[in-house]
Amino acid sequence: MMKIEVIKNVFESNDTYAQKNRQHFKEKNVFVVNIISSPGAGKTSVLEQLIPLIKKQIQVAVIEGDLYTTKDADRIGQLGIEVVQINTEGACHLDARMITQAAGRIHLEETDLLIIENVGNLVCPAEFDVGENMKIHISSVTEGNDKPLKYPLIYEKAQLVLLNKVDLIPYTEFDLAAYKEDVQNINPNLVCLSISARSGVGIKEVAQWLVEKVKKQNEDAGLL
Amino acid sequence: MMKIEVIKNVFESNDTYAQKNRQHFKEKNVFVVNIISSPGAGKTSVLEQLIPLIKKQIQVAVIEGDLYTTKDADRIGQLGIEVVQINTEGACHLDARMITQAAGRIHLEETDLLIIENVGNLVCPAEFDVGENMKIHISSVTEGNDKPLKYPLIYEKAQLVLLNKVDLIPYTEFDLAAYKEDVQNINPNLVCLSISARSGVGIKEVAQWLVEKVKKQNEDAGLL
Repeated sequence: MMKIEVIKNVFESNDTYAQKNRQHFKEKNVFVVNIISSPGAGKTSVLEQLIPLIKKQIQVAVIEGDLYTTKDADRIGQLGIEVVQINTEGACHLDARMITQAAGRIHLEETDLLIIENVGNLVCPAEFDVGENMKIHISSVTEGNDKPLKYPLIYEKAQLVLLNKVDLIPYTEFDLAAYKEDVQNINPNLVCLSISARSGVGIKEVAQWLVEKVKKQNEDAGLL
Repeated sequence: MMKIEVIKNVFESNDTYAQKNRQHFKEKNVFVVNIISSPGAGKTSVLEQLIPLIKKQIQVAVIEGDLYTTKDADRIGQLGIEVVQINTEGACHLDARMITQAAGRIHLEETDLLIIENVGNLVCPAEFDVGENMKIHISSVTEGNDKPLKYPLIYEKAQLVLLNKVDLIPYTEFDLAAYKEDVQNINPNLVCLSISARSGVGIKEVAQWLVEKVKKQNEDAGLL
């Protein structure tokens, strides 16, 4: 009798890779964040501001996800840290297997914090665990304050949301109180920090928040 | 011998529905546009400005795509036109079969222009033909001028790009000349109009451009 093998679920296979990644990162004592936003919310610009502050205290490496170009990786590479580019060739998100391959090219032994900049897309990347410790969502005031209710999954899954471009609030109808209330209703544990990659507002606080998360993990690992 | 049926390609099945939609819209003499953008680029806000001008001249109906909510449909419904909501329940784009179902609930005999507002996503919706006459891309200056090179597919497939939020250019580093040059290099036939849903700049011109497209199709149909 012929046996037909059924591929159960694309997510199951992804989750298997994600768990392996997570175990591997833990063994290497690397804290991993997965940054997810709409196109143009400012992922790369925020990293350009954040990384110089962070790398004074801990070792940082970056995996850059993009459809076709190396434009973002070129920018991050100028910060003098290790960067690996993943071109998805049209695929709308990074999956765990891509991260396995890219992480194999990073000196994890010398890395404290690995930052993954996902493809610019607010829908699909939120569905894929890549083995990260934490998802960070970057939102921008120019997208409007209705986004948490319209794209709730990333707000449910993230631990930190950075509200970027707050310097532009005076020139928009963005309702900060309504935004924060919606965020709170979706995920009461979500930390929400207001920033501007352009003016620099809030960047120091984010850098400090992240460095403390990494140091705390290192302490916890030492105690085990 | 057991026959194993292979589902060839999700796009093939989608294209079959898209062709049927296209034929059906043609028979009913309805011009169909598929609006694609990042989350928060201003699809709904632009429609709120455009539709009151357009509906003075021709009959308009709208299909609203959203993951879960009816927030956009509620706004468009207030303009006194026919609106049908598609909730994709997490799916990252509208496909042709969804449009077949939604169009069945619209009075196409009384419709000249059917506007489809796709899910906010710059990657996936560009890949799916839904039977439209034309894709329209809404870009916004706050997303940055690097988007054509980073997300080329929508620029290749669209006939019209509306560059929104130009009132915010003075508060950003947006390079309009570089943007237009990149657009031109990707798709020399792409019409690019600068607008602001907030200030109203350029809205009249877009309304006129669209109404003329619809009227020209009606004339061409009369000549056949």
